[in-house]
Amino acid sequence: MYQAMSTLGFAAQSGQYQYNGPIKLEGAKPGSSVVILGAGLAGMVAAYELRRAGYQVQILEYQDRAGGRCYTLRGGDSVEEIDASVQKVQFARGNYLNPGPWRVPYHHVALLDYYKKLGVEIEPFNMFNHNAYLHADGELGGKPVRAHEVYSDVRGHVAELLAKSVRQNALDDAVSGEDAQKLLASLKDWGFLDKQYRYAKNMQTSMARGYAVEPGGGLMPVARPSQPIGLKDLVGTNLWSMLGVFNMHEFATTMFEPKGGMDMLAQAFARELKDVIRLRSQVVRIEQGADGVTISYKDRGDPDNVLKARADWCVCTIPASVLSQLEEIQVGKPMLDAIQSLPYGSSVKIGLEFNRRFWEEDERIYGGISYTSLPIEQISYPSTGYLSSGPAVLLGSYTYENTNSYRFTAMSPEERVRLAVEWGSRIHPQYKKEFRSGVALAWHRMPWIHGCYGLWNDALRAAHYDDLAAIDGRIVLAGEHVSYIPAWQEGAILSSLDAITRLHAKASA
Amino acid sequence: MYQAMSTLGFAAQSGQYQYNGPIKLEGAKPGSSVVILGAGLAGMVAAYELRRAGYQVQILEYQDRAGGRCYTLRGGDSVEEIDASVQKVQFARGNYLNPGPWRVPYHHVALLDYYKKLGVEIEPFNMFNHNAYLHADGELGGKPVRAHEVYSDVRGHVAELLAKSVRQNALDDAVSGEDAQKLLASLKDWGFLDKQYRYAKNMQTSMARGYAVEPGGGLMPVARPSQPIGLKDLVGTNLWSMLGVFNMHEFATTMFEPKGGMDMLAQAFARELKDVIRLRSQVVRIEQGADGVTISYKDRGDPDNVLKARADWCVCTIPASVLSQLEEIQVGKPMLDAIQSLPYGSSVKIGLEFNRRFWEEDERIYGGISYTSLPIEQISYPSTGYLSSGPAVLLGSYTYENTNSYRFTAMSPEERVRLAVEWGSRIHPQYKKEFRSGVALAWHRMPWIHGCYGLWNDALRAAHYDDLAAIDGRIVLAGEHVSYIPAWQEGAILSSLDAITRLHAKASA
Repeated sequence: MYQAMSTLGFAAQSGQYQYNGPIKLEGAKPGSSVVILGAGLAGMVAAYELRRAGYQVQILEYQDRAGGRCYTLRGGDSVEEIDASVQKVQFARGNYLNPGPWRVPYHHVALLDYYKKLGVEIEPFNMFNHNAYLHADGELGGKPVRAHEVYSDVRGHVAELLAKSVRQNALDDAVSGEDAQKLLASLKDWGFLDKQYRYAKNMQTSMARGYAVEPGGGLMPVARPSQPIGLKDLVGTNLWSMLGVFNMHEFATTMFEPKGGMDMLAQAFARELKDVIRLRSQVVRIEQGADGVTISYKDRGDPDNVLKARADWCVCTIPASVLSQLEEIQVGKPMLDAIQSLPYGSSVKIGLEFNRRFWEEDERIYGGISYTSLPIEQISYPSTGYLSSGPAVLLGSYTYENTNSYRFTAMSPEERVRLAVEWGSRIHPQYKKEFRSGVALAWHRMPWIHGCYGLWNDALRAAHYDDLAAIDGRIVLAGEHVSYIPAWQEGAILSSLDAITRLHAKASA
Repeated sequence: MYQAMSTLGFAAQSGQYQYNGPIKLEGAKPGSSVVILGAGLAGMVAAYELRRAGYQVQILEYQDRAGGRCYTLRGGDSVEEIDASVQKVQFARGNYLNPGPWRVPYHHVALLDYYKKLGVEIEPFNMFNHNAYLHADGELGGKPVRAHEVYSDVRGHVAELLAKSVRQNALDDAVSGEDAQKLLASLKDWGFLDKQYRYAKNMQTSMARGYAVEPGGGLMPVARPSQPIGLKDLVGTNLWSMLGVFNMHEFATTMFEPKGGMDMLAQAFARELKDVIRLRSQVVRIEQGADGVTISYKDRGDPDNVLKARADWCVCTIPASVLSQLEEIQVGKPMLDAIQSLPYGSSVKIGLEFNRRFWEEDERIYGGISYTSLPIEQISYPSTGYLSSGPAVLLGSYTYENTNSYRFTAMSPEERVRLAVEWGSRIHPQYKKEFRSGVALAWHRMPWIHGCYGLWNDALRAAHYDDLAAIDGRIVLAGEHVSYIPAWQEGAILSSLDAITRLHAKASA
């Protein structure tokens, strides 16, 4: 069907998903067992589905909570870094930061199905807010501008320039005659151009980019058009590239978040699996033989004592960053090489609590993200509790895979928070007066993961990905790092579903 | 500040609002009174604020409920048309249709403030959904395509064409040299162009328009790029102009809706004003003299008996469509001419209830709007209850000011619903199997308003608007029809706030 349609030149159907509804595993051999390492989403999905298929399952989890990076920080929580420094979260009741995943695209269909299956309520995550700011140091006088202005002006100027070109017959080899006339009409409409095909200051362009003075009622002053940003002021700016995020499938509407915090799904899985998760269990050795797998681990409260867990099969969701540091993992060289070759992405998130929602009350920003060239890069406003009074938490910085994230990683948590407030106050002057407390999580400094996500590139994928994903004897790996959607929960879940499907096939053979 | 900045050529600040926080009226002359006609939002805002300022207020309302067009239809409600035909709404508990206003832009700041003040909870209204459909009969084979495909492909083709033109130096008089190079870089980024500045089928454009096969986990099939729609297939189509709605300030994110139905604010006001609203009161005559205003009205349960209400002042929010039909209204010729000159917009909304959310479950459409060239024009999916099971209501058609809305107005309610299902099934084949019931509200056939909203144009504004809005003796008009934001609740509220501010100034003089 897809092939036939695309030969007509127009079909272009997108959106065939790898997940087509709940996995159907059944008929495990009686008494067969699986040990699962790690109680993040990949591990818990594996345990949940394998148990339903008839396996005896157990999960060993290093931390004293299930969920892994499906994680929410609330008032009273503690965050310990590799140097044993501890931050105590001081947010008011009901406020939180999702330091790991924080948004769910509509096309992450497996994750959405688990929300539904486990009764986790969701609400829209507002990714795309026309009224948030774009800001670049040294551009447009360094002043934040509203996204809807740049968003409209870029489109308008491009439309005007292209219309000019078409009218000068400069593109006759590409588009001419009747098509050129149609294109002009479309550009006029799409770019809010006037009769002379100009993107100018008038009420028409203000219908797209907003008015200088909004229309009112009765005998209030009449509305006034706003002045578009000039093409010369826009060309080559960072503002233009900041629009890219508005155009990416990865961030397309509708996005969601669980109500109350990202870890609601982890909590729901943990309730289901309460009797099979063993917390505070540090795996030190993974051995396998003809008749099963043996996991050596220590209870973190009793580190001198090595315990053993045995099973027929093993689903290992321990991140490669940690797995590569175990005393031993008995897998072949290809998988070992893959584990040892995968670097982990750096990422830092900083949550800031303020006395009130000044971004809503003073600036009419309801959710969404402001982008800046400052090292904090982003300010994301809460997509929940709109119009409410009292303290609220925003994401004061989110950096990844660049010098900013490494810079923040190298600082003390206090310094990260201090600078997020300092830099953020250049976007929102209210910051300093309204600031209450903050928490900064640098993923490379988390003792249980030493990084944020598997940082693949094309060369690494070609060399190692299939070896990482293949079953080695009785062991299969799963997690976002064993997926083509790294850093996203959907990747972890799809990886897990694929891994257990293959493992079940092998176990049933 | 605005002037100074715009001379620098970049400031372009938009968003100065006419409403700057709660109105502060105080010090009414002791014992002075206001009669308010109509308990819609304009009337109730007037009563609420004037009472706080010290006036004795009373409201006469024709219907047996307060709220006017701030209206929600739920199971058990009845809708009566001018020919006395009655529809009984059969929706399941919790489901509803907002037949009047249904969405609240972030820049409708007065309305949002009243939500906050009266404790009405809001949730995001999803206007902009990349995964909803665009559909035009006779274009792209008449097949619905996902909005994100058209949205990306239009941008990509435009960027490619403009890049081509720039590289051929066809635009040297407009942009050249270093700026031309910067523009090329920006176009490449913004349009997802390849190194040859082409918008082609590859993984890069799929990052914007979506993949043919989405990426997966483990050893699932690798992702595959989708095929962009060709420029020739897009140029001149209705699909292009359907994108306009994605680009309008009027519909910019973040939009909201009250949780539970649009009338939640009307209900909240009605609770506040319970003791001053008289329902079922049909105004027949409005008289004024040197010492006050006299309203003649009838209780609809006792139409032979004319009652009188007297007050010092009158705020009349009766729509011009009805006001022009009263036995008498004692105002000067300018206001009378204005009242009699204003036509009312035609609009029809059709709500359809289905057994399940097939648009979510089968098609991954979570809220937002599909646009079609069929007479139903739009299908809007609920922005609430995402992922829930059981019956749900969508807006199966919304038409206004055109032949489609008149066509639907002329049909029986049953026929409107039947055709909405028939036409809608061309977008969603599941319609026929899953349909439960529908309700269709044609505003021109509502006995209490005879139209949907004041249909101004520039000539009418010039001739009559100021006369309509000016205080005539002791009478001032208010409502969306006395605003520059017709058809929106913000217009009604701003109109009311402006009217009572002027009336209070006159009464205090």
